[in-house]
Amino acid sequence: MPSEFRLKRRVQFYETDMAGIVHFSCFFRYLEEAEHAMWREAGLSIANGSGIGWPRVEASFEFHRPLKFEDEFEVHLRIVAKDTRTIRYEGIISKGDAKIATGKLAIKCVRAIAGEPMKSIDIPPDIDKRFQVASGV
Amino acid sequence: MPSEFRLKRRVQFYETDMAGIVHFSCFFRYLEEAEHAMWREAGLSIANGSGIGWPRVEASFEFHRPLKFEDEFEVHLRIVAKDTRTIRYEGIISKGDAKIATGKLAIKCVRAIAGEPMKSIDIPPDIDKRFQVASGV
Amino acid sequence: MPSEFRLKRRVQFYETDMAGIVHFSCFFRYLEEAEHAMWREAGLSIANGSGIGWPRVEASFEFHRPLKFEDEFEVHLRIVAKDTRTIRYEGIISKGDAKIATGKLAIKCVRAIAGEPMKSIDIPPDIDKRFQVASGV
Amino acid sequence: MPSEFRLKRRVQFYETDMAGIVHFSCFFRYLEEAEHAMWREAGLSIANGSGIGWPRVEASFEFHRPLKFEDEFEVHLRIVAKDTRTIRYEGIISKGDAKIATGKLAIKCVRAIAGEPMKSIDIPPDIDKRFQVASGV
Repeated sequence: MPSEFRLKRRVQFYETDMAGIVHFSCFFRYLEEAEHAMWREAGLSIANGSGIGWPRVEASFEFHRPLKFEDEFEVHLRIVAKDTRTIRYEGIISKGDAKIATGKLAIKCVRAIAGEPMKSIDIPPDIDKRFQVASGV
Repeated sequence: MPSEFRLKRRVQFYETDMAGIVHFSCFFRYLEEAEHAMWREAGLSIANGSGIGWPRVEASFEFHRPLKFEDEFEVHLRIVAKDTRTIRYEGIISKGDAKIATGKLAIKCVRAIAGEPMKSIDIPPDIDKRFQVASGV
Repeated sequence: MPSEFRLKRRVQFYETDMAGIVHFSCFFRYLEEAEHAMWREAGLSIANGSGIGWPRVEASFEFHRPLKFEDEFEVHLRIVAKDTRTIRYEGIISKGDAKIATGKLAIKCVRAIAGEPMKSIDIPPDIDKRFQVASGV
Repeated sequence: MPSEFRLKRRVQFYETDMAGIVHFSCFFRYLEEAEHAMWREAGLSIANGSGIGWPRVEASFEFHRPLKFEDEFEVHLRIVAKDTRTIRYEGIISKGDAKIATGKLAIKCVRAIAGEPMKSIDIPPDIDKRFQVASGV
């Protein structure tokens, strides 16, 4: 029953911009990569064609230092809150001892049928039971 | 009955990389932007939920000069071949009088039903009749 | 002396994901597109090779509704705060009358010399005087 | 003295599009990821701030089958030609036994000084000696 995940990753060339650093929009993708890896660790896929979807409802980052090409970094993702329809994560991105950025992400469970509007629903029990809020939150 | 399209576009910051120029992968997106704009001009959407899809089967570019942040450029897209299942485009990217890059793209008509493998089919007549090979090809 | 900007934009195919909607990371790119267009309207380029850079220090979005392929939308960007080293924006993304998402972005002025660490500096007067906080903030 | 490289990779959510498959532009990024990993294996960085750059001059792909979210795939990159100023790669992307796509990439060595136009130069000997054409080509 995971409550956190540590993703190791290296900066790719196409993630840099002309300022010579990772474009800020990529940090949101890094956070999501860690989330999906945590779901796989829980034995789940966040997008498995079952008609359940997880749109992002809030996302934010504070950027402390830049990341550069080929930097190796870690995303430390933790579940910080969970209710019947929403999961909230926090993610710390770090390079060695240096804190690079701090992110937050909230996702909501919806029924997603092709051709119909998405509709908010309760998190199904078999998903809900796989995740718990991280200790010390 | 369009056979070509001219798209005007400006380079965005997130399309540049640490070399200070547009990342080469973005040129393929520019070509596709022009394609989809040409389809709209023909009164069509290339992805309208009808169960017909247009996967790309071949794509190539020769790069002559770089594009930089805020450069204004044009994509001149032309249909250069069409048969019962395939459409072939060529696209010249230019900035003023300077030729920047030359691209080719081939797309194939498929039946795309969620949950089933894609299956090659003939281009439906109501789509086929909207496009023609550019003159002088 | 701009304090706000309205960018009209259409969703591109490569901005969608397998959920059939715009990937949330693209909203941050839309906000930045509007910012850079506002700078051009002010007669400036945000990245002109002068050794001044504008890293993003905070970025956030609340997502209310999805955007889909070929949707036409507007980014209404406003300057909501400005001090000696930082500019803060808010951006409302809407499609017709529907509010799609609400974003915030804070940028900081730095000296950015190739090969040296970025160093926070005061906003140069010739840039500072071009922008003002939007009325009614 | 590497002549080939095998990169293992998993499809990320943000690389999919509304057709439910990896957007074709991402394949070019996969090829480049493998290239840069091969350079690291050779003890080099392809972008190390030395004033030498490697713009892409030709890039192409033939797409045989789609990749989907969370698919694990391999990029098998090989050097297929090398002359005084140019390196040519081929890359086979496969998923298990299935061949997904076949790519080609040609890069050229240039002097890249900030503020000056790029200028084609011979590959420096200390780089040239690290790479060789793959056997059997």
